[in-house]
Amino acid sequence: MTVAGDEMHALVERLYPLCRSITGDGVRATLDIVGEYVPLRVHEVPTGTRVLDWTVPQEWNIRDAYIADAAGKRVVDFAASSLHVLGYSVPVSATMPLDELRGHLHTLPDHPSWVPYRTSYYKPEWGFCLAQETLDALPDGDYEVRVDSTLADGHLTYAEHVVPGQVADEVIVSCHVCHPSLANDNLAGIAVATYLARSLAERTPYYTYRFIFAPGTIGAITWLARNAERVERVKHGLVLACAGDRGHLTYKQSRRGDAEIDRVLRHVLTASGRPHDIKEFTPYGYDERQYCSPGFDLGVGSLSRTPYAGYPEYHTSADDPGFVSPEAMQDTLDVCREAFGVLDRNRRYVNLSPYGEPQLGRRGLYDSLGGRSDAKEAQLAMLWVLSLSDGEHSLLDVAERSGLPFDTVAAAAGALHDAELIKA
Amino acid sequence: MTVAGDEMHALVERLYPLCRSITGDGVRATLDIVGEYVPLRVHEVPTGTRVLDWTVPQEWNIRDAYIADAAGKRVVDFAASSLHVLGYSVPVSATMPLDELRGHLHTLPDHPSWVPYRTSYYKPEWGFCLAQETLDALPDGDYEVRVDSTLADGHLTYAEHVVPGQVADEVIVSCHVCHPSLANDNLAGIAVATYLARSLAERTPYYTYRFIFAPGTIGAITWLARNAERVERVKHGLVLACAGDRGHLTYKQSRRGDAEIDRVLRHVLTASGRPHDIKEFTPYGYDERQYCSPGFDLGVGSLSRTPYAGYPEYHTSADDPGFVSPEAMQDTLDVCREAFGVLDRNRRYVNLSPYGEPQLGRRGLYDSLGGRSDAKEAQLAMLWVLSLSDGEHSLLDVAERSGLPFDTVAAAAGALHDAELIKA
Amino acid sequence: MTVAGDEMHALVERLYPLCRSITGDGVRATLDIVGEYVPLRVHEVPTGTRVLDWTVPQEWNIRDAYIADAAGKRVVDFAASSLHVLGYSVPVSATMPLDELRGHLHTLPDHPSWVPYRTSYYKPEWGFCLAQETLDALPDGDYEVRVDSTLADGHLTYAEHVVPGQVADEVIVSCHVCHPSLANDNLAGIAVATYLARSLAERTPYYTYRFIFAPGTIGAITWLARNAERVERVKHGLVLACAGDRGHLTYKQSRRGDAEIDRVLRHVLTASGRPHDIKEFTPYGYDERQYCSPGFDLGVGSLSRTPYAGYPEYHTSADDPGFVSPEAMQDTLDVCREAFGVLDRNRRYVNLSPYGEPQLGRRGLYDSLGGRSDAKEAQLAMLWVLSLSDGEHSLLDVAERSGLPFDTVAAAAGALHDAELIKA
Repeated sequence: MTVAGDEMHALVERLYPLCRSITGDGVRATLDIVGEYVPLRVHEVPTGTRVLDWTVPQEWNIRDAYIADAAGKRVVDFAASSLHVLGYSVPVSATMPLDELRGHLHTLPDHPSWVPYRTSYYKPEWGFCLAQETLDALPDGDYEVRVDSTLADGHLTYAEHVVPGQVADEVIVSCHVCHPSLANDNLAGIAVATYLARSLAERTPYYTYRFIFAPGTIGAITWLARNAERVERVKHGLVLACAGDRGHLTYKQSRRGDAEIDRVLRHVLTASGRPHDIKEFTPYGYDERQYCSPGFDLGVGSLSRTPYAGYPEYHTSADDPGFVSPEAMQDTLDVCREAFGVLDRNRRYVNLSPYGEPQLGRRGLYDSLGGRSDAKEAQLAMLWVLSLSDGEHSLLDVAERSGLPFDTVAAAAGALHDAELIKA
Repeated sequence: MTVAGDEMHALVERLYPLCRSITGDGVRATLDIVGEYVPLRVHEVPTGTRVLDWTVPQEWNIRDAYIADAAGKRVVDFAASSLHVLGYSVPVSATMPLDELRGHLHTLPDHPSWVPYRTSYYKPEWGFCLAQETLDALPDGDYEVRVDSTLADGHLTYAEHVVPGQVADEVIVSCHVCHPSLANDNLAGIAVATYLARSLAERTPYYTYRFIFAPGTIGAITWLARNAERVERVKHGLVLACAGDRGHLTYKQSRRGDAEIDRVLRHVLTASGRPHDIKEFTPYGYDERQYCSPGFDLGVGSLSRTPYAGYPEYHTSADDPGFVSPEAMQDTLDVCREAFGVLDRNRRYVNLSPYGEPQLGRRGLYDSLGGRSDAKEAQLAMLWVLSLSDGEHSLLDVAERSGLPFDTVAAAAGALHDAELIKA
Repeated sequence: MTVAGDEMHALVERLYPLCRSITGDGVRATLDIVGEYVPLRVHEVPTGTRVLDWTVPQEWNIRDAYIADAAGKRVVDFAASSLHVLGYSVPVSATMPLDELRGHLHTLPDHPSWVPYRTSYYKPEWGFCLAQETLDALPDGDYEVRVDSTLADGHLTYAEHVVPGQVADEVIVSCHVCHPSLANDNLAGIAVATYLARSLAERTPYYTYRFIFAPGTIGAITWLARNAERVERVKHGLVLACAGDRGHLTYKQSRRGDAEIDRVLRHVLTASGRPHDIKEFTPYGYDERQYCSPGFDLGVGSLSRTPYAGYPEYHTSADDPGFVSPEAMQDTLDVCREAFGVLDRNRRYVNLSPYGEPQLGRRGLYDSLGGRSDAKEAQLAMLWVLSLSDGEHSLLDVAERSGLPFDTVAAAAGALHDAELIKA
């Protein structure tokens, strides 16, 4: 069943041509499109606003950029791909010999047909990214270079979508929206987050789920700076990135390493039988860097397929819509749904009849025929829940200790709760 | 040396024909016989008594039961084996066609010559257990069925035997006495417990040892309900079951997993070089389920050979006296004796001369000739005991850290204690 | 580079002929020579002084000792090797038949050409050590035996050398100086300690380093008894012994097992790629026995090459200057220097900007060109230090968690400290 997979892939294709950066109209256009799928609350934060140790930079917008040869032919053209211009390039309009131009050109000699993705957010620069092959084919001589961009006071834009739950405690799902024409990084993450939000809304979840669509680093920092009180309520979280390539899933643990989200993802990935990797936290990667900084130290992990910088197509023009697949995005979505399904039901119960076993048979919860060696899984699950419901062990502990499926354990807890033998 | 092994096997054979259940005269007759070996205090608890979440049921007694064919020939006869009747069968006296009778018959299709053991303690039922072969050979037609049993207000019967120790803290040894003609489960456990009690009485042990002979589940629950204050004094315990088959020993740890009894059994089994299994606690098995329920959470493990439900003969007529061996019972007894020997001597000492090593040579505890590389084990053991006697480490810790035999360590502690270098 | 190695080997050869014991002029002569390399403060503690559980014994000095045959020829002669006389032999001057003499002779039947090292410090005895071959060649008959020694009130001698550090907290380096003509045990340890002291003085270290040259057991006990208040300041320590044989390095952990010195040595030995062994603490070996006795329980480990009693030449005449090599002593010295280099810089920092990442780029600590996948090690190290600087993790923790070299991590901490982003 990859209906959602196909739809997510279509969303990736739709968002692909837009030129996103950490500020500017490309982000706004992206959020407009996402907003067609799930309602978004969009925030605009003025240039110059202090956010933690940072300051919201000037807003960058670009209309056109190119390198043209002596004949006026555009040999590198922003219109063909948003990657061609160095992100946050300052305006330039000049003619210069190739040798002078070279200092502003970025290529990938090891992958001569690919265009790299490069930025210079905090140091004023201009530049172009192009294939090494293209550069090699350029004859010496003068070239016209033009970047028609503006860097001016404006806003940083990010958006939130909330799925209200039974409790005010929150789970955040965060994905960065600042990368231009790169499919896996991070249009696939945006698409999976969008469809995950829709899926969660099908029934009221236990937790309140908050989806954050924000530019990388400065966006997460801005959200954290503006939500100091809310952070107390964030109990769990997941950063979604690189969610659509054909590699297997990788879960990078939170800085804590034993946060509940870490245990849930480890359990779900292992129990599913999928090939997968579990990685220790490192302070390098996506916005888990900010959520897990030691002052916040939130229980936020990161789910990706092939991880950050782990594939040659990373941050190049080869990360195009063909690089991501509907099946992979569907698989990522499925694991997110399973994981949040476990997280949402994972409770610590207290056995109200902890001295000896309660008589389950009297309550219709146990076979009347004794002596057989094939105890039913549902009965075993009830015994396990009773045994470990001491206020310390969660249902996930029960599932892991017993080797029984979490669903069976959760169902047993439900039956025992209905029989008033345990309380949450 | 299997003198005790042979005697234990003879006890199993003597107890084998009796029809035991969770109440009734079969339990009383069993305790009468065990009482010939060790003095027992027998308790009778009236029907209807509330015990924790349970209620003592009516007492069941049976005189006769059979299925007879049209010619009056008994084709299934309780007189041949107590297994043939469903435990706690209500009385019945009727004639019915085979097809109607089938709903009350229990067989083992996978083991067509064996008779299963089945019960229905808490739901009024009647039934017979028989070999599949026997059933297959019955022609259609009418059969006379008769269960001459009574289910009436009476008592639940259990017994205790106490070996007084130097201290009031207790070790309990518990075995279930409710199974009818099944040798390994649990006549072997009863026999080993009986001979263990005799062995412990040879000299006054440190702990007080309490042996509990009680019907499974309801018996342990009854004992716990009636000994709420004594439970405080129960420091360690062992459930003995399936103690005589030819498989290797299996120790199932207490719910705590790090109780002292767990460490002692792991140590003794490992140090002995015997093949064995150590299993994590599960809330399924024998009366460790009750002793380890989270409200009590006692340090009670379970020692068996092939564990609960782990052999095809389990709960069938194939678990007969030939299924258990004198050697296996002797081996189980030996390990129990070794384990309680360690447990009884396992103390935490405090080094009274903890700053530097005390001068052992002055006290005649150390070789005067220096320079040699072959330190004697006894001297090493003294150094280890001195090093770890900080009030935190037990002699078992010393044995495990040093790799020295527990007996050597205990002897070293004795010598140091005599020299007033350590105190308990 | 084995300049120091060659010099250390020369020191071993110079010290080798002296007859050392736990007291006496041989120790004084040894300390006189060491004092030519590093200034020593020599302590003389009178016979009869109570030191912890022990008493300083009488001082032993020896001028001559021999066994002479009927012809007056010396068949065993102290002048040839200090090993020939039982350490602390009482004086004797007698003539006796070989059979009576045998009870005073010590040989190594398994190594017939080697002379063993034997002592009798605390039981008045006299004796000789000789090769089994020598003994076998002695014809029956009378022999003159003479030990020209004195055992009289005097002093126990030990010495200290201190390298003052930035703080008063101390690291002790201890080596025993009581063994006679044995090269690896412990002239190599003395030589490495001496050159380590010289090396540490090249720049003021963080800790104050105290080198203790003292007789084994009674010397360490005497130091501990006389430094009860200083012991509070001893944060780390290392016992150096068997530091020059050609085997690989062995680090024996402190009794604590997780002391910082344990972690440092494990890290340095592992990171260096050297073959090595890490051993658990045992209360048998060298003076770590005293420093790690439970009343003190100092973080003192022991560094050797082939460990205590782990080679056949141990405590025999085969442990001569040829048994130790300049390269091996240099290697031991190098690891000590590396280890103390790590220990000296291993600090816990607190991130002063713990909410989100601080903007490193603004401070010139981060590349301005974004999008590349090859983060520089120095930048990664800064992110790791920021992430783990919560007051709980040390730089060694950072190095081990990140897999980055300690030097890189320490440099990153330095840069962040200069930028006032962390404080110690």
